Formats: sequence, C-alpha cells, structure tokens
Amino acid sequence: MALSEFDLIHRFFQSESLQCGQGVILGIGDDCALLNLRPGEQLAVSMDTMVSGVHFPVDAAAEDIGYRLLAANLSDLAAMGAEPVWFTLALTIPSVNESWLEGFSRGLAQLAGEFHLSLVGGDTTRGPLTLTVQVHGRIPVGQALRRDGAYAGDHIYVSGSLGDSAAGLALALNPPSLLSATDSYLLERFYRPTPRVEMGRLLRPYASAVIDISDGLLGDLQHILQRSHMGAELELQHVPLSEPLLATMPRQDALLKALTGGEDFELCFTVNPADEANMLRELQRLQVPLTRIGTITHRTGLRMALDGEEFSLPAHLGFQHF
Amino acid sequence: MALSEFDLIHRFFQSESLQCGQGVILGIGDDCALLNLRPGEQLAVSMDTMVSGVHFPVDAAAEDIGYRLLAANLSDLAAMGAEPVWFTLALTIPSVNESWLEGFSRGLAQLAGEFHLSLVGGDTTRGPLTLTVQVHGRIPVGQALRRDGAYAGDHIYVSGSLGDSAAGLALALNPPSLLSATDSYLLERFYRPTPRVEMGRLLRPYASAVIDISDGLLGDLQHILQRSHMGAELELQHVPLSEPLLATMPRQDALLKALTGGEDFELCFTVNPADEANMLRELQRLQVPLTRIGTITHRTGLRMALDGEEFSLPAHLGFQHF
Repeated sequence: MALSEFDLIHRFFQSESLQCGQGVILGIGDDCALLNLRPGEQLAVSMDTMVSGVHFPVDAAAEDIGYRLLAANLSDLAAMGAEPVWFTLALTIPSVNESWLEGFSRGLAQLAGEFHLSLVGGDTTRGPLTLTVQVHGRIPVGQALRRDGAYAGDHIYVSGSLGDSAAGLALALNPPSLLSATDSYLLERFYRPTPRVEMGRLLRPYASAVIDISDGLLGDLQHILQRSHMGAELELQHVPLSEPLLATMPRQDALLKALTGGEDFELCFTVNPADEANMLRELQRLQVPLTRIGTITHRTGLRMALDGEEFSLPAHLGFQHF
Repeated sequence: MALSEFDLIHRFFQSESLQCGQGVILGIGDDCALLNLRPGEQLAVSMDTMVSGVHFPVDAAAEDIGYRLLAANLSDLAAMGAEPVWFTLALTIPSVNESWLEGFSRGLAQLAGEFHLSLVGGDTTRGPLTLTVQVHGRIPVGQALRRDGAYAGDHIYVSGSLGDSAAGLALALNPPSLLSATDSYLLERFYRPTPRVEMGRLLRPYASAVIDISDGLLGDLQHILQRSHMGAELELQHVPLSEPLLATMPRQDALLKALTGGEDFELCFTVNPADEANMLRELQRLQVPLTRIGTITHRTGLRMALDGEEFSLPAHLGFQHF
C-alpha cells in the first residue's frame, strides 16, 4: 500500500508515547518545530547516524534499531548531565514497509516514554536505510559536564561493565544456531544499551569531566585527557568485566574488548578525591556499579598496568581510522 | 590518505566561515553542543535529508550539494520568520574523498557565512551518500509565522518566480552538451535556491500564514488550507513564471511546473487586506517580486481559474505518494 509522507508520519510517529516532552509549542506539522526553554537553562544537542550494515546488521529487528538509535543519542545527553526533552528523526528508508516502521517506532517509543521525550520533527526520504536522530536536552546554565575539566589527582571511574556490547555485536553478526543465556545477555547489551541519564544528572555537582563510552574506553578517555591537557594512569585489573563476557572468552580478550570495543554507552568520569565520598553516596541509589580504574596525572599520555606489570595494546588495536 | 574522524572534522568543518553564529557556549568537540537562547526567545528547528540519486544527481558538484542542502533547511526557518543561528550535520559518505569534502564544505560555508550560522555538531559515518542538516533559529516568543492562521478574505502571495527549480532539475538529470544562458539560470535556481530569510523576518507583523514552497505551490498551499481550515481561489494567470522558464517550454507546461514541481524555496503567504499596503511597502527594499495569486475562502477546497476559465490539473499530477 502506498502511504503519503503525511500518513506515514501520522500513523507511526505521532503516538502519545512519542509526545511526552514539555515545552513543545508546535511539534510535527509546520515548517519548523517551536520549542521553549525555561529561564536559566541552556540547550544541549547531539546527533548520531546509524547506517544499515555498518552500525547494525542488515537483518537486525526494527524495534532494536529504534531503541539503540535513541539510546546512543541519549547517552550523549547523559554525558553532559542534561535532561532529555525533544528529538528529531531523519528516516531514510528504501521502501514503505509497514511492519518494519511499526517495530522501529515501538523501539523509539519505549525509550521516549521512559525519558519523557517528544518527537518534534524530522524528515522522511527514500534511499538506503540510514537513520539520524538529534536529541535536545536542557540544563541549568553553567552546570554542564564537559570533557575539559579533569585535573591531576582526580580519580577515574567507569559505570557498569565494559566490553559486553562489542561481544554482543560479534554475536549479532554471526548468530549461533542456539542462543545461550550468556549470548542473550550480550546481544541485549548491544541492542538495548542503557543510557545513564539519571547518573549524568546526579554527577553534575561532583564530576570534573565526563564522557560516554562509544568508541571504547581508551579512545574516549583520550578525549578527556586531550581536552583537559592531562595524562592518566590506569590499573587495568580493575576494569569492570561482566560474568557473561568472561564466560565466553579469556580474560585478556575480554579486557581488549573493554578497552577498544565501543558502544557500551557507560559513563567514564573523573572526580576530585575530596568529592568522591559524596558522589559515591549520592549515586548509590541508582544501583549501578561504579569502579575506580585509575588516576589523572599532570604528565600527559596514558600509562597502563595490569596486575602490576606495564601493559601495551597490541599494535593493530592502537588507532582507528575513519 | 586515511583521516581520523577528528582530523576530517577539524580540516573541513571548523573553518571560521562555519563558525559565525552567536550563543555557542560549546561547539564541536564534546558530547553535546551547548547553546544559549536570549530571554524572550523561542527555538525553531527543522531537519532535511538529501540522498544521492534521489534529491540530486549522483554526479552533482559537491559545492552545489552543500549549498542546496543548507539553503533548503534555511528556507524552513524563513517560512517561520526565525533568525538562523546554528546547524548540525549528519554526513554519511562512502569514502573519504578530500576534494569532495572540500567542495561540500565550501558550499555550506558560503551560506553559513552569509547568514551568520555556526556548525555546532553532527556525526560522520560511512555509508551511501546521505546528508542530513538540522537548522536552529531563534524568534521572539509569539512571533512565529505558522501555517494555521489564514482566514477568509486574506490575499495569497508568492515571492519570486515558480517552476524554475523543477526545470533546472530536469536539465541536471539530462544536461545538454552546450549550456545556454537560459539553461544556466534554471540550473542555478535548482542548485542555488535563495532562502527568503530576511523576507520571513519582515513578514512577522503582517502575514497570517506562511509556508515555503518545497513540494510545489498547490501541495504547499494545501498545507496552509488544511491547517487553517479554509479554502482558496487561485487565478493562475498571475502565477509568476520567469522569462527563462517561458523560453524553454510552452506556457501551459511552465505553469504545471510551477504548480506541482517542488523546491523553488520561495515563500507562499497570506495577508489580511488591511495589512497588505504596509506589508508591500516594508518588503519593497528586498527587491524580490511579490505576486498576489488568489484569495482565502471560507468554503474549503481549492478552486482554480486560468484566464477566467475553470482549471483542473491533469489527473496524473493530482497526488504524490511517498
């Protein structure tokens, strides 16, 4: 059945669960959306694209694609300490497949409902499956968590466990004929990452620098170090690895996944030791593990040790080109 | 040469001419951009995607693609009466072609410089050439020009001339071996549309409804009529057609291009006759033709006459599916 763009938008993208946000003066249906910030707030925006066959397998379930697309974007707001309010969607699809659209929209709506987001606009075009979301958050002026505030002596933390998503992607690309509980956990971590939005908000008074882990711990920590003009020492035996990950591969391989495999969407942050106890007390209620993995140093560069021995990455994992 | 995403962004998308906007607290290089509205302002956002081979020929010049992509988005802000300030870019490219990127970036920068826009963020991914831009404008609270304010008796105006872009697209798809001056004009109108940003701003106190013409006059006017719950009568002999368009095809064909061929990015707006003289006086300084083409009616539906005779579209031009 041929659908007009208007019908398609109305049918799949204007449900109540996609319209939970505040401050929407005018949403889908005019030349622009009109949005209101409250006095004393700044706007935080981030944009992510996912391409079929590049960022997810071509046979990925539409619902998972929708969920993951929005989760990845929300993770950027989380890393800023911003409160999500609105998003826009550029949907490029090869044809109008109603069951695909229905699933995709359901995946988006799950997260949008949970975080009280409104879909306020976007574009629908025909072409190779490519999805871009921009999220919009609000944050009191001056309270944003940036990458450039780490200072020598700050402790380096990560949330949750790392490497699961990279292992899940490997499973998604080569699915076993029978899924074990371990496989299911890792696939879920790839397709359904948890954006640490509330954690970011709670970190506002404590963290000196924050980033979300989307390129692997080492690559993302390097961004903090470069923007802050600092170095770091990591004790890799502390890097949090999940039981399911350790059940599927040797510890060294799991560690490499954690260090260089991206898209866990956990937070990596630095905190002054004087603020550490208050931070830990405040964040307890989230019941998400927080692990100290190292220390910021004046000396630039990143030095790593594993069980007391100096550690270097295998050369082929050292740098990722576009 | 392989470029990191960081290098690519730095080299092609952080030039001064792409950083002219105000209110940027934090631009490219953190998890989010941080942006400030001024007190009493609302945010207007719009997003557009262009896909190679769908929205422009696969062999289109990169500079033209960049220009047109941003122009189309700015046109949506113009139709809202908003002042452009920031944009984000999702760039999906099959490979890193430096001369293409250089041209594309130059096309963006021309318009960004002219309208004092900053490129504040986005994403760069590998995949089939697909480009999404979101523009962000600001507008004093309550002054946005919407689609839903047209009222019976209002006069319907369009800016510039219509149909040129559709004729230009036909030339772009089947370029003649030798370009005449007429051809060049029409191609320029396709690749380098002029977003009517200043016109939108000047229309704020006068227009009752505004839309930009991106789907053809009739389709876009229908959006105003539907949102305003009104009808219209058009006198098609007044629809402005350019000399170059009329030089390349019979008047009837030119008129059909104007009515149903999209992407002229002119403004179509309605104005109460009591405000008309002031509007015309104020907008004179733009030196852009404004043409009255009809009247809004209580009776819903769109009635058209050409030289006093009732006019209907050929059936195959009546409705466009996605």
